[in-house]
This record gives sequence, structure tokens and C-alpha cells, in this order.
Amino acid sequence: MADLSIVLLHYPVVDKNGLIVTSALTNMDVHDIARSSRTYGVRRFFVATPVRALRLLATKIMEHWETGFGSTYNETRKDALGLVWLETDLDTTIVAIESETGQRPTLVMTSARPGPRRRSFVALRAELEAAGDAPYLLVLGTGWGLAPEIMERADVILEPICGPTDYNHLSVRSAAAIMLDRLLAPM
Amino acid sequence: MADLSIVLLHYPVVDKNGLIVTSALTNMDVHDIARSSRTYGVRRFFVATPVRALRLLATKIMEHWETGFGSTYNETRKDALGLVWLETDLDTTIVAIESETGQRPTLVMTSARPGPRRRSFVALRAELEAAGDAPYLLVLGTGWGLAPEIMERADVILEPICGPTDYNHLSVRSAAAIMLDRLLAPM
Repeated sequence: MADLSIVLLHYPVVDKNGLIVTSALTNMDVHDIARSSRTYGVRRFFVATPVRALRLLATKIMEHWETGFGSTYNETRKDALGLVWLETDLDTTIVAIESETGQRPTLVMTSARPGPRRRSFVALRAELEAAGDAPYLLVLGTGWGLAPEIMERADVILEPICGPTDYNHLSVRSAAAIMLDRLLAPM
Repeated sequence: MADLSIVLLHYPVVDKNGLIVTSALTNMDVHDIARSSRTYGVRRFFVATPVRALRLLATKIMEHWETGFGSTYNETRKDALGLVWLETDLDTTIVAIESETGQRPTLVMTSARPGPRRRSFVALRAELEAAGDAPYLLVLGTGWGLAPEIMERADVILEPICGPTDYNHLSVRSAAAIMLDRLLAPM
């Protein structure tokens, strides 16, 4: 199985006017993407925010489901949230993967916008299958997407998800689910 | 293009112990599934709850984004929420589709559990493409899934979404996104 991790970045991302901002951490993002990650065999789901208070809040929420009342009330949440690691930013996430696997991950940036040198889902899927235990990191942005300074660090830029319409404003939760299904679902 | 609508039922659904319950309406379900529906060219996204107070609350929230402050703050939400119709239950939803299309929709029930006579995504996709303007309704349950009395009314039961693991607890938002991608994404 491919060695794929996900990071959800809350900084630096752009707002609807293209300004660099730090977005707020959304509880539902953590739960939904953790469940999708668990379903598709993702190694880890990193939630990265530079705001210490938000990392502490997320820790509290996860403790509720992992060791508190929620751990017996709903075991499926505990199981999924076990994949979640809180990090500060992209660099601390890369270090965490290096520490765990001994290798620097290939960085796969995502965007809802088309552009040059996008890799297709089919091509990335084939690459993951051929990569053995080499780690890959799928980088997702909150707000209106990853800042240019993050996109520039790409080893791979994944093509946008396109439906049969010209509307391209999926939630990051829905986009993550579709990406994992396209890349990792059994054929 | 296939004539597909979605309904998200909040009653009758089962809880984790298999009891029939009415689940609470979740704001994020409405936004996420509306965006996915808009992306994939779905005709309508029906949100069905028998609780009048929750329908009124949903109407308030949608007004904010459709005609209130939110309509100019974020036009992409307005665009997606335009697909949402509030209904009471499955029967009022069927009547709404009949009124609009002149035909009774084919009922496609969904479940995270395997079972007899499930139709594959590939087969349903081919059926939708061949069906011309005949309406189809994809029925999604909140809580722990659709009650048996709803499942029994199926014209079609769709196979569950399976990843490469044995974990099958996607959020309904993520499941809806993956289903639409499998059924309606351009090949």
C-alpha cells in the first residue's frame, strides 16, 4: 500500500481577496478528514496551525474522544482520531515524517485552480503504487487555498477536481475525500 | 447529463444501537453537500426533516447566504445553496420531484453496510447515462443510516464505499462527495 500522509495547513493560506492569512481551525475538518484518512489507509493526518491556543483546543477535543467520555460513546471516532497529529506548519510536519520513516516525503500540493505542470490523479496513483515505502505528503489548504510560497515548494502539483460543471468550490473536507478515493480506492 | 437529485433524511434513521430516531440538522451537511451537488450538476439537494423548527432555522441560515449579508460576502455559497429545498420526509420529496419533472424518481438507497442485491457504482453510472431525462433520487441517511422501512422502498441499493481498509465510518458529507464523483465525474 502507498505510504501517504495528509497535512491540512491553516497558515500560510489565502483569503478570498488573495491576502495571506491564518485561518481558524474547524472541528469538523479534523473529524471528517480523520475518518476519510482511516478509511483509505493514510499513515497520518497532520493538522498544522501556528496558533498555540488552537492546538491546545484541538488536543482537548481529541482527548474527549480518545480517552474521555467519547472514547466509549463512539469508538469509531477514537479509531480515526488516532491518526491525527497536531503540528505547527509544513516544516514541522516534514520533520515528523522524516523522524518516523527515515525519508523526506515527496510534497504533493493541491489547488482548485488549473495551471501549468499539473499531475493527473491517474498518474499520481500509479506513482504511489510504484513508490514502495517512500513517503508522500498531500498538502491541503484551508481558506481559499495554499499561499504561493507553499505552492512553490511542490515536488508535484495535483490537478484540480473537476465535475461536469464549471463550479469549483468544494469544501476541503469533500475535496480530501474525493482525492483519497481517486488515489487509493481498490480498483 | 443524468437527472440526479439527492435527499438527506433526518427521519427515520437509526442510532448506533439500531433504534429509530430523528437526527438533528447539521449546518455543515447542508453547505458541504450543496457545494458537492453544484460541482457535479445535481438537479436538487433536498434536506428533509419532520421538525418544523429545524426547517425554519435552515431557512434563516440560507437566507443569510442567499439574500442577506452573505450573498455579497461569498457568492459561491449563494450559488450552491440555490439547489437546496427543504422538505418534510421522503414522500414530500418524491412529490416535489414529480411536480417538477412529471415523473416519479427511481429511488437509490445508500448504506455503509454490505448486503444482498447491491448495485455497483459502475453499473449505476451506466444506467444514469442511459436514462435520458428520467429522474433518479439518491437517498442518504444521517445518524447511523437509513431505517429498514426506508431501505425496503428501494428501487436500487447502491454498494457501500470501500477503501483498502475495513473501516467504514465516513461522514455523510464525505460519502456524498465520493458517490457523486464516482457517478458523475467526467471520464
